[in-house]
Amino acid sequence: MAKRSFPLSKVYALLEPGPVVLLSTAHKGRSNVMPLSWHTMMEFEPPLVGCIVSGRDFSFVALKATRQCVLNIPTVELAAKVVGCGNTSGRDVDKFKTFGLTPVPAESVGAPLIAECYANLECRVVDTRLVNRYNFFVLEVLKAWIDPGCKDPRTLHHRGRGVFIVAGETIKLPSKMK
Amino acid sequence: MAKRSFPLSKVYALLEPGPVVLLSTAHKGRSNVMPLSWHTMMEFEPPLVGCIVSGRDFSFVALKATRQCVLNIPTVELAAKVVGCGNTSGRDVDKFKTFGLTPVPAESVGAPLIAECYANLECRVVDTRLVNRYNFFVLEVLKAWIDPGCKDPRTLHHRGRGVFIVAGETIKLPSKMK
Repeated sequence: MAKRSFPLSKVYALLEPGPVVLLSTAHKGRSNVMPLSWHTMMEFEPPLVGCIVSGRDFSFVALKATRQCVLNIPTVELAAKVVGCGNTSGRDVDKFKTFGLTPVPAESVGAPLIAECYANLECRVVDTRLVNRYNFFVLEVLKAWIDPGCKDPRTLHHRGRGVFIVAGETIKLPSKMK
Repeated sequence: MAKRSFPLSKVYALLEPGPVVLLSTAHKGRSNVMPLSWHTMMEFEPPLVGCIVSGRDFSFVALKATRQCVLNIPTVELAAKVVGCGNTSGRDVDKFKTFGLTPVPAESVGAPLIAECYANLECRVVDTRLVNRYNFFVLEVLKAWIDPGCKDPRTLHHRGRGVFIVAGETIKLPSKMK
């Protein structure tokens, strides 16, 4: 995988625009993938990410048990696979095989990276206080990878029911904000 | 304001794509506005939204004290005003006057709607358990408004340091996901 390590201090710039991500887990010898859009940055460094994983999702059990996952960021070329992963359950199918996704061993967690995604964030669960009430997990990003060839990633932004906005033009304004 | 009431059950479709929002508050006779991108949907209905408001932000005090706010969703036409609101503090300036934003009374909260934004979500704080540790507030959307003339809102998605992706083309795939 022609990816390089990406500085943790810049991870927020990958997730802050709100892209759909593919959450990958591994538990009891089975890897799984699910798309999710309900996530937010919570801290710059170390990067903390909050996300909702429903108790109905097969990934919930793996995430809760292993406290490890990878957030993989797909671009528009993977849209059909992303929706496919959302339309099926890891209870029934091996999503890596079914959708032709390539698992790659991570450096610091047991869950696999997805080779086809332009960025991968290896995460561990650091706070479960809001899991019972909201299925809300706080993750710390331990290691980040990026495809250096992907300059303007055309990320997917879900508007519900399979409708996605694709990242369009980029504008820059003089900002004091980080 | 030519806006109409928007069903609470569809609010997730406005926030799930990850747009920059303008959070408006009112406290002790002063209204204020700040842009933020660190937010996530947490529940469909009633719609719950989690967001980070830093303790350094002037809005933090107002949000904590009043437990009310409005999340206003701007489009690209407002980009300069959005960045302006981020570059200044409500401690020093009246951002509504400075940036030519029009406050409109809300129906269910004391904070004002911003007329120029294509959608407005009146919110109350419902959970502060993660405020001390992460400045993370859980909001419930009580009332939503939308400009019915704005069909494909060109929302802003922050990539850090004043760089924004503008919502581009829309694609639709056959999805079982909500």
